[in-house]
Amino acid sequence: MGEGRMRGLATDLYQLTMAAGYLANGKTGEATFELFVRRLPPRRSWLLAAGLEQALEYLRDLSFDGHEIDYLRRVPMLARVGEPFFEYLRELRFTGEVWAVPEGTPVFAGEPILRVTGPLIEAQIAETYLLSTINFQTLIATKAARIVGAARGRSIVEFGARRCHGFGAALLAARAAFIGGCIGTSNVEAGYRYGLPVFGTAAHSFTQAFDEEAEAFRAFYELFGDQTTLLLDTYDTITAAHLATEFGSRLRGVRLDSGDLDRLSREVRSILDQAGMEKTTIMASGDLNEDRIEELIGGGAPIDIFGVGTELSTSRDEPALGGVYKLVEMTRNSQLVPKMKLSRDKATYPNRKQIWRRQGVDGHFAGDLIGLAEEAAAGAPLLERVMVGGKECRPAPTLPEIQDYAREQIERIPAGVRALADPTVYPVSYSEQLEAAQATLRRELERQH
Amino acid sequence: MGEGRMRGLATDLYQLTMAAGYLANGKTGEATFELFVRRLPPRRSWLLAAGLEQALEYLRDLSFDGHEIDYLRRVPMLARVGEPFFEYLRELRFTGEVWAVPEGTPVFAGEPILRVTGPLIEAQIAETYLLSTINFQTLIATKAARIVGAARGRSIVEFGARRCHGFGAALLAARAAFIGGCIGTSNVEAGYRYGLPVFGTAAHSFTQAFDEEAEAFRAFYELFGDQTTLLLDTYDTITAAHLATEFGSRLRGVRLDSGDLDRLSREVRSILDQAGMEKTTIMASGDLNEDRIEELIGGGAPIDIFGVGTELSTSRDEPALGGVYKLVEMTRNSQLVPKMKLSRDKATYPNRKQIWRRQGVDGHFAGDLIGLAEEAAAGAPLLERVMVGGKECRPAPTLPEIQDYAREQIERIPAGVRALADPTVYPVSYSEQLEAAQATLRRELERQH
Repeated sequence: MGEGRMRGLATDLYQLTMAAGYLANGKTGEATFELFVRRLPPRRSWLLAAGLEQALEYLRDLSFDGHEIDYLRRVPMLARVGEPFFEYLRELRFTGEVWAVPEGTPVFAGEPILRVTGPLIEAQIAETYLLSTINFQTLIATKAARIVGAARGRSIVEFGARRCHGFGAALLAARAAFIGGCIGTSNVEAGYRYGLPVFGTAAHSFTQAFDEEAEAFRAFYELFGDQTTLLLDTYDTITAAHLATEFGSRLRGVRLDSGDLDRLSREVRSILDQAGMEKTTIMASGDLNEDRIEELIGGGAPIDIFGVGTELSTSRDEPALGGVYKLVEMTRNSQLVPKMKLSRDKATYPNRKQIWRRQGVDGHFAGDLIGLAEEAAAGAPLLERVMVGGKECRPAPTLPEIQDYAREQIERIPAGVRALADPTVYPVSYSEQLEAAQATLRRELERQH
Repeated sequence: MGEGRMRGLATDLYQLTMAAGYLANGKTGEATFELFVRRLPPRRSWLLAAGLEQALEYLRDLSFDGHEIDYLRRVPMLARVGEPFFEYLRELRFTGEVWAVPEGTPVFAGEPILRVTGPLIEAQIAETYLLSTINFQTLIATKAARIVGAARGRSIVEFGARRCHGFGAALLAARAAFIGGCIGTSNVEAGYRYGLPVFGTAAHSFTQAFDEEAEAFRAFYELFGDQTTLLLDTYDTITAAHLATEFGSRLRGVRLDSGDLDRLSREVRSILDQAGMEKTTIMASGDLNEDRIEELIGGGAPIDIFGVGTELSTSRDEPALGGVYKLVEMTRNSQLVPKMKLSRDKATYPNRKQIWRRQGVDGHFAGDLIGLAEEAAAGAPLLERVMVGGKECRPAPTLPEIQDYAREQIERIPAGVRALADPTVYPVSYSEQLEAAQATLRRELERQH
């Protein structure tokens, strides 16, 4: 779930034209595709993998109903492909095998996040949806983890639904942000669908709806008691902070949404403390990101909770992750044949792969090796089998389990690699066997072309 | 449609806490909110409004079912609000009135794109969803219009599903890109749901699935005949271009997806022309945006169609539009009372507003006036009544109609305002009556606070 049930049509047209081409040419044997990110986005030195649950739901549901097939018959590009193709699509289900790194696993450039093996047409059609959900959720989980790291133990709540790329994106952003370490979201539908903790205070319009700010505050406190967080900046923040002292130490919190958050948080903290409200928390919101939060926290601003919207929920500084899904192997005359793309700036490695992660004596990750799936290498293999014969073959972890796992994994990334500014590069190498396989295939292809 | 049916829970929790506060305090009278963009994003000198259809669908469907109400009862923050609130929500439908600028209308900073008048709680809860769909679709329609403008008559196809913020975003992006002037999309589900033209060629994996590139090309041409576009850069673009000449002038097109597009397009054009294939088109894709396209076209690159993905479908250079939804008026003791927000950097104008657009003798837009809705001003009023009593009160335009209207409107924006680099500022002013209303209310609020 997350964006309505998506099925066979949730793909690019060229996946279907290729599928028709495969079918017409008897290319219905098994193929393997791997999903990975070629280069890390600017400022990112690692990624937090997310989106596997939606990927597997999609594969489980992948099919075409009669209306959808009728629609495809009317697509001009498909006018000549013939009835056998539409019959094939009508029967199509995903029957293959999927290996993936668990959601919440840190990954690096070139590392397969997901590997799909199945009849070529099934695996090909799935490309677009798999990329859309894993690219986006990995993007947001990574951004969330950066922001959570910058907050040094203060809490982050995801607040971005109104600036997300539609409400479907808002749901997935709330889910991925939780994986990345946010304590919850303002998005009620995300709370309902995914069981995420939901948080809410009030907006300026609530204060405006009353003649007096004090009257609005009293009405809110009357209803929400010790759950109340009052929004202070509708008219004047300091005046409002003084009004808030009327409620004493049972007031849960106040929120600042504009102005100089460093100065205002100190002044408001002082007003609250003088009223014996040391436990009343200060929440800040308004155009926050990891840099701004690091600056505020580093400078000692007494802010307990940050509500982060736009910058988190759209990953504003880098709003797209360039994950790709590449053919690495296919069956020909009952033989597995390795495949790679040769074009200069986008060459790939052939064959099914595994990632092995080594651990140093301090418990931190010490380096990764990408090799052929059947190699024996030192370290813990990261890709696990999650679907066989189109059916999930392991109990799906809950979101709190994924969040706990992610937190533990992130702590094991070397501190230099995790640094927000000028991170060091984490060592990832390719095995000798994989390099040799690529070199052999490259020579062969260059001879041909 | 677009992201699954979204209803009452598709909102931020604070909308519901405020709603509970309004109900408990008898604030169930009418209120008016306006949706507008305070400041234009960097490099944008105008916006193309989009998303109204999804906004109205949401308002038509707005409700809470029994499961959703049960969920809300278990939300800790709502533990004390009492049964009458949940009963209110169970009966809630949107019963209000909506005014909006038609989709495809150019708008500027401060101009209301949408105005909602209805019982305070209904209008408040709708904020999050209305912003999410109008912010995003306006963002993408605007980006598409910039790219289409840069292409000077060459065609643009939306290609970005795999890099969108999940598949729900991909659907809305395809829709908004069409409004902004794209000729269609690669997204099949968007074609199915919205009736958009869909386009598709083949990917590198299709070529790789055959032993020989020539064999892959023949298989594709065999099936698609004069609809065929061949992808040339799996191994070597120039070699592949020569292979493509085998099909002669019936070959519809070729596609370049990497490398120096300017140089390659010229070399490929020359190879095709020498083979008498002057009508075979060249499509280019790969990390394109308005600047790159302007550079290619300006330099004379013989490219006929551009496939634009990431940069268009995520509006990568500015991936969020900061539209807001502000209370401007509410009923108090059967009297309409103007409302505004006073905070220094985010002050708003009170009262229901209208936009009047003046036209110069050359047919270009000459300037806008934002005034009180009931004023009589020179120019064409832009906001139209689109919903009354919760029901749509005009036939919804089709997407081709919206696209045609948008094209005609965009041509009427002065050329300087439309320029990609260093655009001039379009003149928008506030009426004397509106300025006076704001000044009066500001003095009143400052006296109180």
